[in-house]
Parts: sequence; structure tokens; C-alpha cells
Amino acid sequence: MFLRNCWYVAAYDREIGREPFGRTLLNEPVVLYRQEDGTPVALEDRCCHRGLPLSLGRVEGNRVRCGYHGLVFDETGACVEVPGQSAIPPGANVKAYPVVERYRWIWIWMGDPALADAALIPDWWWADDPEWGYIPGRLLHIACDYELITDNLLDLTHLAYVHSATIGTGAITDFPVKSERLTDRVRMSRWVLDGPPPPTFREAGGFTGNVDRWQAVDTLAPCHSVVYAGCAPVEAGIVGADFTGRVPDGINIRALNAPTPETETSTFYFYGHARDFRIDDEAWAATMYEQFLKTFLEDVDILEAQQRSLDGDPDAPLIDINVDAPGLAAREMLRQRIKDEARVVAG
Amino acid sequence: MFLRNCWYVAAYDREIGREPFGRTLLNEPVVLYRQEDGTPVALEDRCCHRGLPLSLGRVEGNRVRCGYHGLVFDETGACVEVPGQSAIPPGANVKAYPVVERYRWIWIWMGDPALADAALIPDWWWADDPEWGYIPGRLLHIACDYELITDNLLDLTHLAYVHSATIGTGAITDFPVKSERLTDRVRMSRWVLDGPPPPTFREAGGFTGNVDRWQAVDTLAPCHSVVYAGCAPVEAGIVGADFTGRVPDGINIRALNAPTPETETSTFYFYGHARDFRIDDEAWAATMYEQFLKTFLEDVDILEAQQRSLDGDPDAPLIDINVDAPGLAAREMLRQRIKDEARVVAG
Amino acid sequence: MFLRNCWYVAAYDREIGREPFGRTLLNEPVVLYRQEDGTPVALEDRCCHRGLPLSLGRVEGNRVRCGYHGLVFDETGACVEVPGQSAIPPGANVKAYPVVERYRWIWIWMGDPALADAALIPDWWWADDPEWGYIPGRLLHIACDYELITDNLLDLTHLAYVHSATIGTGAITDFPVKSERLTDRVRMSRWVLDGPPPPTFREAGGFTGNVDRWQAVDTLAPCHSVVYAGCAPVEAGIVGADFTGRVPDGINIRALNAPTPETETSTFYFYGHARDFRIDDEAWAATMYEQFLKTFLEDVDILEAQQRSLDGDPDAPLIDINVDAPGLAAREMLRQRIKDEARVVAG
Repeated sequence: MFLRNCWYVAAYDREIGREPFGRTLLNEPVVLYRQEDGTPVALEDRCCHRGLPLSLGRVEGNRVRCGYHGLVFDETGACVEVPGQSAIPPGANVKAYPVVERYRWIWIWMGDPALADAALIPDWWWADDPEWGYIPGRLLHIACDYELITDNLLDLTHLAYVHSATIGTGAITDFPVKSERLTDRVRMSRWVLDGPPPPTFREAGGFTGNVDRWQAVDTLAPCHSVVYAGCAPVEAGIVGADFTGRVPDGINIRALNAPTPETETSTFYFYGHARDFRIDDEAWAATMYEQFLKTFLEDVDILEAQQRSLDGDPDAPLIDINVDAPGLAAREMLRQRIKDEARVVAG
Repeated sequence: MFLRNCWYVAAYDREIGREPFGRTLLNEPVVLYRQEDGTPVALEDRCCHRGLPLSLGRVEGNRVRCGYHGLVFDETGACVEVPGQSAIPPGANVKAYPVVERYRWIWIWMGDPALADAALIPDWWWADDPEWGYIPGRLLHIACDYELITDNLLDLTHLAYVHSATIGTGAITDFPVKSERLTDRVRMSRWVLDGPPPPTFREAGGFTGNVDRWQAVDTLAPCHSVVYAGCAPVEAGIVGADFTGRVPDGINIRALNAPTPETETSTFYFYGHARDFRIDDEAWAATMYEQFLKTFLEDVDILEAQQRSLDGDPDAPLIDINVDAPGLAAREMLRQRIKDEARVVAG
Repeated sequence: MFLRNCWYVAAYDREIGREPFGRTLLNEPVVLYRQEDGTPVALEDRCCHRGLPLSLGRVEGNRVRCGYHGLVFDETGACVEVPGQSAIPPGANVKAYPVVERYRWIWIWMGDPALADAALIPDWWWADDPEWGYIPGRLLHIACDYELITDNLLDLTHLAYVHSATIGTGAITDFPVKSERLTDRVRMSRWVLDGPPPPTFREAGGFTGNVDRWQAVDTLAPCHSVVYAGCAPVEAGIVGADFTGRVPDGINIRALNAPTPETETSTFYFYGHARDFRIDDEAWAATMYEQFLKTFLEDVDILEAQQRSLDGDPDAPLIDINVDAPGLAAREMLRQRIKDEARVVAG
């Protein structure tokens, strides 16, 4: 069901410390904590003796001690102490998951540890680059399938209906959407030409006249999407520029999105926003934090209602429309990866 | 499981307006709203595109627009607009249900629309006849099978036990109950002769001496019951009169009951009370509203406890007693109708 | 699944009076009440007519009347009155369970009534012996399999981890545990020699020097455990004494534990503490009541988390360690009894 040999975001960096922290990811209970030097550890959150979650125990040095009978596990998941006996019984260990702390997030590899390669983490360097300002997100726990979130991100039509009270503007839908299947990603993009900037953009960039705007999303399997958004004065003539770089004379925003499945129908949604302007303006960042959050919460209502409706009649037919193209391509890309993974395992 | 080619009450008239209103009926999600001229519409509450309930969208003219991607459906369920494209894809429509507004309620036909005939709605004309006063009910959402409510209505024994604090009086059970299977209904009736009127009746009719009372229930399939109740002075000699008409020299009450299944084990219960006396006395009506509601809520407690108990051991045997005769007849009548419907569909 | 031909605790004596009291035991709904002379009665909590729990009815004399249609059942479960008719229909009765009030608890026999023998109730005479003081427990409703509670009671290792804030002391684990399978019970015992008494013990017995301590648990099938705990001054030389008797020169405590399954994964936990010292000291008893309760609630958190974890992956393997010996023996004893019972029934 899930792609396993890939990285997911397990937690915001700020969530994990020297207390064991339990979270279910891809239906598996995981306990996270930091070693004495701060290195994060992720283990199976279920003692191999009587099943108590290790997250109810305590961290001792680089290890975690179960809160029931006191068994101790090191950062590799090996049991290294059993109170009341000197020998460690065979099979006394819990699963250990590769973890990497990057871009303010703790990434976890839920598949074969031998295949874990940090280079496979999406290259989202803006999150901690000093030339970019960053606004971390809040944790959202959403009662929906994580793929519904990817659908949502790859579709800009819904801005006009779901976000009419916040960021939606009807004018957007007059411009065509381009959908591309690149080597490792699906790209959706749209240019909105020669129009007045939305209030937030105008204030951010100090624009006095019309601007050319771009909105684009790159989605990588299994579920990592970066939104490229920004604008520049019409006079700058930037239409067609490479928006994945830093478009000159304009403002550039990156919205990073990582919805991690908890179960088939519930998701932890991690996000954050990077920008190349007003990077030290804390007040502006605080305002933007609230605005982004409000917008995401509008989506949460829709996504959870959609999931309940789909659950009510899972086999009912649905139709596709034109704007679904990028979302369908992302689903196809993920299905193919899951299929490839199954073949490798079977082979 | 459910009889489908028949009318059910979907909502009180006051519940439906120009905002889309979602309600599950017979396990199907339904959205209700009124067109510009007030005509009610009922559609499948599930967009055919990505499944969002249309009740989260908005009404525009006589149509409803989905709150996610903006598809528009007309009152026949046909999709008439898809944002971002000019052509409507094949299969873009939702189910439409025949609806009729009558007797202050919105009636819905959940079966084959071609068979919907407003003449099949129970003839409960008292609800909006100017010579009768009417007290609308409150919406009750009860966690029980709707047939348990019919059982309850067709049994007067429980008044002495469930309603001992409100309308129950032990004396009632001394008089025999008559159970009849008429062409299209089950009728339960009882005459209580030559006794003092209950306080409410005495006050209502200004009786000074003993009265003859009747209590009767007509139940039509699938689940529509009208209670005929009233009394007249003994001197009027009305024993044996046709209580379905207006018994002269007495007071006549009609309690209209329409429990609509939401699921097999939950029900929306619609009710109302008509009377031929004190028809303009608002204060009296307000008092009666509270008294009826209190009585119904006593039943709710019992019905939900009964359902939980039955769910706990669905196959445990139960015995029947004499007072069950009308309820058993109503169940038999409904089973026969469901069987006939299955045969027609199969044939 | 459950052993049936045995006694379970259904309720604390104080819970049962002249109002009908409903409780699910071993997945069966039971109603308890007292007859006019105080004798407890236990019947199936489900009217044989339409299934309403009899616990929603009322006690009349030695009988209970259903709150729906008024059927009356006597203390043998026989229906003795049906309103509206003179004859009692065949099959009109509910199941009656043998009950015995003993040791401040109401014991119930959930199996074949013909086999119920009060002599099979554990001999826990300390609970109401005038030479012992008794502290009744609070009712604990725990969302776990009752066998997890027996595991917990038969294991003293967890004191150091679960109860480190209350009764746990690391020194205990330095002394060996003895596990025995006696005729009708599993016994776990440990002597802790020549050490300072824990604060509670020192205060209770007025000890000024080191003591020898014992901790022992006898578990009888299905789930009844008595903890023997106490200590005496080293000079008394009581090591190896029969702790099931009253060890002289010391203090003796009996913790009585009766977890009764409600379902496979939920349990009503009854307990109480007897002591042979300070038997009239109410203030001391009140302090101990709070301390015992606090300790039990620490276990509740662990047990419920353990159950959730086990439910999350019921087939995941678990390992055993040395301290599990008594718990495993108790499970084996119970499995054998359940197997024997199945054979008798089949034969």
C-alpha cells in the first residue's frame, strides 16, 4: 500500500528531544528521541518483551529503558539489559529506522535500512539557507488519505472555492495550467500575466503597478511537494523564466509540503514557507504564519469531509476533469514506484 | 432491507432553505435546498468528481455549486458547469430524488423516480387545515432501528411504565385493545369508558364529569403512524363512533409520526400534533409542545437502551405477548411490501 | 475463552441495593439487586420480551419489573406477571446466576448453576475477621485483558519502573524470586533480607533497625491473587517462616485482588487490603487507601497502553524473560482449567 523505500518526515525538529516521543507512521508505532549529542534515533515503539510502547519509558544516555520491566535498548534497537538476569535472550531487539535531521525536519526511512541514502531526501535547501527567511508550520493531524493532500496541492482550481475568503481569486482560473511528467517529478505550472498583485504580494515587494505571476508545484514520490510562487513587475519581462531558480526583480516563495501517512486514512502534515524577501522581518513572518495556517485549515475541513464521503461508499464511480491532470500524473508516478518496489522485493 | 418505492419524511419544512443541507437517509447521503421559488430539491450529497458532499458548497439560483472544484449541478442532478473547461464530461451527474412539500414536511422518494406519485403520501390533512391547530415537533435523532419506534407507537401498555411520570395511567390497561389489519394499514384501538378525564383533557375540553376516551393508532407501511386520541362526556354517548372523523361534543387530537431511517440502527424522528380545540391558543400550544417533547424523550432513553441490548446479542430469542399483536401485524405488513418490491425489481 | 464454572467478583457489596444495577461480566449483561432481606440476586439483564435491560426497571419486593412493558421476574428468573394477560407465555424467563455475598464482595457463578459451590470461593477470611483491619478498594474499570493484570501481580520487577514514584525500590531486585506450581495455585515469593524497612513499614510496625521482608503472591484460577507482604526485625529470625500464616513479631498484610473480565479487553478490578496491625487506626487506613489507589492507577496507565499496543499488532512475536516464570505458570494453569472444562462439556 505505501511506498517504503523512501524518506518521510517523522517530526518537526522541535518535537524531538531527550524524552521519548511516540508517533505512528505508515501504521507502525515509532519512538523518537535524541542521543546525548543530539543525534535523533527512531525505534519500534513496542517493547519486544510485553509490548509496552517504549515512548512510555525514559531515555538514559543514548538508550531507552522500557517503563514496565526495565529492558534497555540501544540506538540500533538491540536489547542491552534485562533486569533480573545477566544473559540477553535471543531475539531481544526492536526495529531501528534510519533517520536524518535536515531542513528543520526529522526524516525517517520506513523500508529496508540497507537502501537508506540521505541523498534521496528532496533538495529543499531554502529551509535553512541564510539568504532565505523561513516560517515553520504547525503540526496538522488530518483524518484523510495523504494522497488527497497531494491532489489538493497539485490543483489550483480549488483556490477559488475553498479559499475564496483567504487567498483565492477568480482571475487565476483564466490562465492555462501546464502539466508535465519530468524524470522524478510531476510539475504543474501556470503564469498569470499583467495583473495587479494580490495584497500580500504588493506589500511584500512594494510593487506599484501590474505584475506577472507564477504558481507552480513540483511533486516527488511518495508525497513531497514544493510550491513555487512569486511575481515581478511586468516591465522586468520575466515571463517564462525558470521559477525553480531565484527570479530576479521579483519576490520568490517556496512552500514545502510533506504529508506523512499515519494510516491509510490519517496523515501528519508537515509544512514550512521560505522566501527571499523581508527575510529578517519577524512581524511580517508572524502575520504570514497565521495566514498560511488559516488557509491550511480551510483545506483540512474539505479534506476530512471528502474522506468521510469516500469512506461512505468506496466503490462509487468518480469522474475526472481537465484540472485533474497533474494529480492523476502524481498518482500514476507513485503507483509505478510502489509496483517497482514490490517487484524488487519479490525478485 | 428498506422499502424504497415509498415516501419518507426527509426534513421539517423549516430546516430547508437557500443553504444546502446534508442528511443521510436510508444510508444514502442527500443534500436538500430550495430553488428561487421555494421548491425543494434533493440530490445525492456527493460530488461525482471527487466526492465532496455538495452540502459543503453553495446554492446559486436553482443550482448547487461544489465547494471544492466548483462543479455546478442543476435540480435534476445534471452537471452544467465544470470550471476550467467548456465540455461537460460524460457521466457528470448526481442522483436526484423526487421531493414533495406537504403537511409542513419535505417528503422524499428513495426508490425508482418513475414510480413517485404524490398521491401515495399519507393523507394527514389536519397538519395544515385552518380548522385544526398544529404543534410542530422537534427533530429527534434516535440511535435505534426505526421499526422499534413503530412497535412503541402501536403499544399502549408501555405508557404505564415508561411514561408513568407524564402521560401514563394504570387505569388504561383495564380496557381491551383491538388489533385490525385493514387494506393498507394496521389499526390498534381502545376505548376507555366512563372515567375521569386526564388533567390535560379536562382542561382542554372544560369537562366537569366523566368521559369516554379513545386511543387508536393507524400505521401505514413503511413507518407512518397517526394516533387518534380524544374524549367526550359520557352523556354524549359517542362510544363506537368513527374516531378517524371528528367526534362531535368532544376533543380530537391527531399525533402524526414519521420515523425515517438514517441507517439500520439510527433514525430521524419527525412528529407533530393537530387538534380541533383551542386552535388559536398559543400559550396552551407551547405547554403542550414541552409535554409532548418530554414524553418522547422518555421513549428515546428506552429505545436506545433496547437497541444497545439487541445489538449485544442479535440472535438471542425473544417472546411475544398479547399486546404485541398490532406491532407484529405492522412488521408483517412491511415485510410483505419489501418482498413484493424485491419481486417487482427481479421480475 | 473464559473459564465459566468458577466464581468471579461481580460487585463490591456497597454497590448493590434495592435499585437494579446493570454490569456486563464475561460479555453477558447482568442485573444485580437485593431482595427485601438483603440477599443479592443476579439475573440476565435483558428482558426476554423485547430486550430492554431490566436494570432500567424497578425492584418490587423480591422481584424486578421491566421498565418497558412491565413484565415481572422473580429471583429465579421466572416471569411471574405479564401486564394485559393472565397466562405466562412459555419460555418467559431470564437466566439466573448463583451469587454469594462474602468478604464484602458479591461473587457470581457464570457457568452451570448446578455446579456452583460456595466452598470454591477463595478462602480470603482476613477481609472480615475482627482481628484484621480492612481497607476496601475503589472500583477500577481498566481497558485491558484481565490476564495482563495477573501478569502484573505476579511480577515484582515492575515495581522499580512503574512504581518508582510510590512503592518501588531498586534494592528488591537483588534478591531471587521463587516460582512454584502448587496443587491449586501458582506461588511467587521473595525474601528481602536484613535491610531497612520501607517508610510505610517502619511507621506501621515501629521498627528501629533492619528487617527481613517477604513478598509473595498466590494466584488461583481464573484470576484471584492474594499478595502476602510484611516484615519482622532481623533479630526475630523469621526467614523462611510460613508467610501465609501470621508471622509473629512482624507486620502482616494481605492484598486481595479480583479482576473480573467485562470483555476480552476490559476488566472490572476489585481489590482490598487486610492487615494485622493498627487495625482500628482510621487515619492510617485513609492514608493507605490513597497510597494503594495511586499505585494501582500507575498500573492502569501501563496496562491500558500495553493493551492498545498488543491490539495494534496481535500477531507480533514477544520474548520471555526470567521474571515471567510465575505469570507463565498462571497462564498455563488457567489454560489447563479452560481445556478441562471444555472436555467435560463435550463429554
